[in-house]
Amino acid sequence: MEASSFGDAHSLNVDVVIIGAGLSGLTAAHQLWKKDPSLHVIVLEAKGRVGGRTVGQTLQAATGTDVWDMGGQWVSSCQPHVMGLLQDLDLATYNQYTHGKKLVQIGEDAKIRSFTGDIPTLSWLALIDLHFFIVKIEKMMLQVPIDDPGLCEYAVEWDSVTMATVKERYLWTTEAKELVDAALRVIFGSDPAHISLLYLLTYARAAGGFTPLISDKPKVGGQEFKIKGGAFQICDHLAALMKKQQLHLGEPVCHVEQLKDSVLVRTIKGQQYVCKRLIIAVPPQQAARIVYEPPLPAQTMHVLQRMPAGCITKVIITYQHAFWRENGYCGAVVTNGGQSVHSDCQRGPLSVVYDATSSGGNPALVAFIAGEQQLEYNLKTAEERKKAVLWSLSEFFGNLALNCIDYAEKNWNEETYNGGGPVSVGVPGMMTHFAAALRKPFNRIHFAGTESATVWCGFLNGAVQSGYRAANEVLYNLRPQVIAARDLEGTTYTIKHALRTVRGRPSAWQQMMQWTVRIGFALAALFCVRRLTNRSL
Amino acid sequence: MEASSFGDAHSLNVDVVIIGAGLSGLTAAHQLWKKDPSLHVIVLEAKGRVGGRTVGQTLQAATGTDVWDMGGQWVSSCQPHVMGLLQDLDLATYNQYTHGKKLVQIGEDAKIRSFTGDIPTLSWLALIDLHFFIVKIEKMMLQVPIDDPGLCEYAVEWDSVTMATVKERYLWTTEAKELVDAALRVIFGSDPAHISLLYLLTYARAAGGFTPLISDKPKVGGQEFKIKGGAFQICDHLAALMKKQQLHLGEPVCHVEQLKDSVLVRTIKGQQYVCKRLIIAVPPQQAARIVYEPPLPAQTMHVLQRMPAGCITKVIITYQHAFWRENGYCGAVVTNGGQSVHSDCQRGPLSVVYDATSSGGNPALVAFIAGEQQLEYNLKTAEERKKAVLWSLSEFFGNLALNCIDYAEKNWNEETYNGGGPVSVGVPGMMTHFAAALRKPFNRIHFAGTESATVWCGFLNGAVQSGYRAANEVLYNLRPQVIAARDLEGTTYTIKHALRTVRGRPSAWQQMMQWTVRIGFALAALFCVRRLTNRSL
Repeated sequence: MEASSFGDAHSLNVDVVIIGAGLSGLTAAHQLWKKDPSLHVIVLEAKGRVGGRTVGQTLQAATGTDVWDMGGQWVSSCQPHVMGLLQDLDLATYNQYTHGKKLVQIGEDAKIRSFTGDIPTLSWLALIDLHFFIVKIEKMMLQVPIDDPGLCEYAVEWDSVTMATVKERYLWTTEAKELVDAALRVIFGSDPAHISLLYLLTYARAAGGFTPLISDKPKVGGQEFKIKGGAFQICDHLAALMKKQQLHLGEPVCHVEQLKDSVLVRTIKGQQYVCKRLIIAVPPQQAARIVYEPPLPAQTMHVLQRMPAGCITKVIITYQHAFWRENGYCGAVVTNGGQSVHSDCQRGPLSVVYDATSSGGNPALVAFIAGEQQLEYNLKTAEERKKAVLWSLSEFFGNLALNCIDYAEKNWNEETYNGGGPVSVGVPGMMTHFAAALRKPFNRIHFAGTESATVWCGFLNGAVQSGYRAANEVLYNLRPQVIAARDLEGTTYTIKHALRTVRGRPSAWQQMMQWTVRIGFALAALFCVRRLTNRSL
Repeated sequence: MEASSFGDAHSLNVDVVIIGAGLSGLTAAHQLWKKDPSLHVIVLEAKGRVGGRTVGQTLQAATGTDVWDMGGQWVSSCQPHVMGLLQDLDLATYNQYTHGKKLVQIGEDAKIRSFTGDIPTLSWLALIDLHFFIVKIEKMMLQVPIDDPGLCEYAVEWDSVTMATVKERYLWTTEAKELVDAALRVIFGSDPAHISLLYLLTYARAAGGFTPLISDKPKVGGQEFKIKGGAFQICDHLAALMKKQQLHLGEPVCHVEQLKDSVLVRTIKGQQYVCKRLIIAVPPQQAARIVYEPPLPAQTMHVLQRMPAGCITKVIITYQHAFWRENGYCGAVVTNGGQSVHSDCQRGPLSVVYDATSSGGNPALVAFIAGEQQLEYNLKTAEERKKAVLWSLSEFFGNLALNCIDYAEKNWNEETYNGGGPVSVGVPGMMTHFAAALRKPFNRIHFAGTESATVWCGFLNGAVQSGYRAANEVLYNLRPQVIAARDLEGTTYTIKHALRTVRGRPSAWQQMMQWTVRIGFALAALFCVRRLTNRSL
C-alpha cells in the first residue's frame, strides 16, 4: 500500500470498490462478476438496505398482506437494458392496468372529466395548444445529441431558459399549462421553474419523446409494465448473487483519495478500502458530498453541484375491491390538485394517480404528491395529509375511496443519502458547460447512476444502462481481454468530442418583425371574417 | 455524554462548535468571546488555513516583495458590519484608486473606449437601454422583502426566469447586454443563465441597488476601500485573538448528530466533539456535504442543493511603475473579453480589471477571469493563460503591460472545501420555496456564511453580519442574560413569517395587447416623422 494522509488504519485491498448499492451500482457489480468472477469487488452502501430509489413495503391488503413498491416501479418493452436484466434474474412483468376511462382534473374550475384513449378531455383550444407544444418540444428534442447535449446548435439558448419560461412562451391556455405542470411534477418532482429546457429535451430524447415519459402505451410509454412481486426485488436478487462479504451496508463513504496506482476509500466509521478502480453509483448531489483528493476537475465538481433532487411523496392505498375498475375507470388520473382542502394550501395534494393492484390481485391505487404541493403538504400532519389524499381520491372515484384497508406514504425527502426524489434535474446553465462531465472518468474514478444514462435516463433502465457502462469502463482498464468493442459503446473511450457551434435566439428586431407579421395576419383574418359576415347579411 | 452511533471514540465536550474558520465563522467565535469569555468555543476548519474566501499571497513587487489579496478584498463605508469589525481590530483602509479615465470594451467590434465619471462610452441607444434596464431592476428590487424574498408579490414569476431570459426580454442592444454579462460574471462568477431573477433582486436589495454591486463610488459602491496590508488579515487577527487550542485546522467535518441535549460533531479523521450549539459557517454547497442525523428538514436540505458556486480566477499582476496612472487611466476596465486570443476560445479571458496598487505603494493590476470564459481558459496551460491575460492588458494600457514583475492567479475552482467562487448563486425556483431556510436554525444547529446575510450578502460585510447573527442566536439560547433585544434583530427569533400572495405574469392576451399598443405607437411615431419630413421639404 502507498502512503496516504490516513496511514494508520488497516485497509482492505480489492480490485474494484462500488459506492452505492442501488440498481446502478449492483448492476455494475453483477456485470463485473459475469465478465470475470475472479475480480474482487466490494459494494459500499450508506443506507442500511440495498435498492437505492427502489424499496418495497408490506401493507394490509384484501387477501391478508402484500408488498408494494414505494420507489421506482415501472418498466417497458422499449427499455432494453432493464428488460434484459429482468430476464437474467427470472423476474416476470405484468401489464399496467389500462382498461376503462381515465380522468383529468384541470383548469380553474377543477372540474373532473373522463376520457378514453390517449387524448384528454380538454377544450379544443387547449388540445390544439398542447398538441403544438408537444410537437415543438419533440422537434427541438431531435436536435439534441444525446451523448453531449452541449453540442446542440441551440444549446446555449435552450439551456438559459427554465421550463416555466418555455411554458409561458409557447402555451396559451391554462388547461395545457396545468397538464404540463402535473407531468413535470411527477416526472421530476420539480416545478417547471427548476428545470432547464435543454435538460428536459435531453431527458425526452433519452426516452424517445416527451409523451413516453408519462405514457402507459405498449412499446412506447415508460409505464407499460410492473414487475411481479415488485421492482425492489431486482436489487434484492442482484445482492443475493453476491458473496456476503462483498456487500457492506451502513458504510457512508466520506473521503476518496487517488494514490499513484490505486484509490483509497474511507468511510465515516473509519473503514478503509484500497482498490484499483472506483465506481461511484449514487445521485449526483450525493456524489458531491464526498471529499476527493486530488479535487474533482472543475467540470465534474460543478455538474455535481447543479443537479438538485426533486420533491416527491409516493402514496399506496389498498382496498377490498377495485371499485374504480368496477365503475369503468382504469384508475389513471392527471390533476392540478383540485380545490384546496386546507386553508393554508393553495390546492389539493395530488398530481397523478394510477392503478396499483398487485400481481397477486390485491387492489390498490398509487398517488403522487410532488413539487410545490409536496412542500406545502409536508407541513401538514400525516393524518391531515392522509385525509386530503383520500378526499381527493373520493372526488375521482366516489366515496368508496375513503374506506381503504391500508395507507402508506414514502416521502423521499426524508430518506437519508438520497437528497430527494424521484430524480435529479439539471438547472439552467448546467447542460452547456458541465453535462459532458456526468460520464467522464477522473483517473481511476468512474461515474454511474441513472442521471448519467443516455437510454431512459432517470428511469430504472437508465440505472441499469449506466451500471453496465461503468463496469465496462472498468473492465476495459483491468481486463481488456474480456471486453469487446461493442461493450464500449457510449463510454468515454469511443465518444469523440467536437467543438460547439453557438447560434443565438432571434434578435429583438427579428422578434418585433415576427410579432408584426403575426398581428398583421390576425388583423387580415379579422377583416376577412367581417367581410364574409357582411356579405352573408 | 449520551449514546450515539459512534460510541467508542473519545470526544471533547464544549459549549459551541463552529464549522468554518472563514470570516463568518471567526466573527461568530469573536462575538461569543466578547459577550462571554467563559464560553468554551471550538472552531473546526477543513482547510489548512483560516480565511475562507479571503487569502493573501506574497509577490515580487517594485520595492522587493508585497502581499496581495487573492480573494475578497473590498469594503465600503456603506457596509457597517465589516467597517465596525475593522475598527475593533485596528485595521485601516485606503481608497480604491479612481482618478483618471476608465475603459470599456464592448460590442461586436470589441473597440476600446475611454470615459470619465460613471457613464461608460456607449452608443446613445445602448445607454438608454442600459439606463431603463437598471431602473427596471431597481424598481423590482424594492418590492422584494429582504428577510424573506419568497413573500414578494411576484416571487413565483420572478423566481421562474433566469437572468438570461430577463436580459433578452428587457435589453435590445448588444452593448448593454454584454455590460450586464460582464457585471454578472464578476459579481457571481456565473453567466446570466445560471441566476434566478429573484436571487439577483435580493442580492441587489441587500446592497442597496444593482450598480453598487460593481461601483467604486464613495459611500454607495461595494468597491470603495481596500484594507491596508490585505483583507485576509481580518481572519488572521481574529484567529490570533483565540486560544491556540480553540482553532483546529485540517479537520473536515463529515457527520453531525443531534442527540437529546447536545450535538455530536465528527471529523473525517475521527475526532469527536460534543457541543450544546453548533454554528455552520461554510458556503451552502459545502454544508450540504455533511451527513446530518436526524436529516435536515426538507427546506434546508433543498436550499443547500440549489446554491452552486460560481467560477472565477483572480489574477494579480505587479509592475515597476503604475504606467496606466501616468497615462491618465485609473486602471478600471469592463470588457466582453475582446477578440479571441486562442483558436478554441470564443473571446479573450477578462471581464473586469482594477488598479491593485498595494497600501505600500507597489503598483499592480487585478483582473478577473469569470464564468464561461474561466471554464474555457481553465483548459489552457498556465503559460497560455498568462500570455492571454497580459496581451489583453496591453490592449488596454499599451505594451508596458507585457513587462510585469510578477504574475499570480488564484483559480477558486481548485480550492478544496470551497466549491468555486466568488459566491454561490440561487438557481431558479430556489428563492420561492427554500430561501427562508437559509437562516433558519434546525434544533441546535445555526447557519452563518455570507450567503445567509441580508446586508451586502456575498460580500465581506455579509460574512461578518451573518457571523454576528448566528452568534447572537446561540447566545440567546445559552446566555440570554448577555443578549439585548436589538442583538436579535434579523434572527429567526424576531422575524414573523407571513403567508405568500401570488400574482402571475400578464396572460398571453394581455401581452398581445401590450405589443399591439407598442407597435401602434411605433407606427404613429413613424407617421409623425414622415409628415414632419414632408413638411420641411
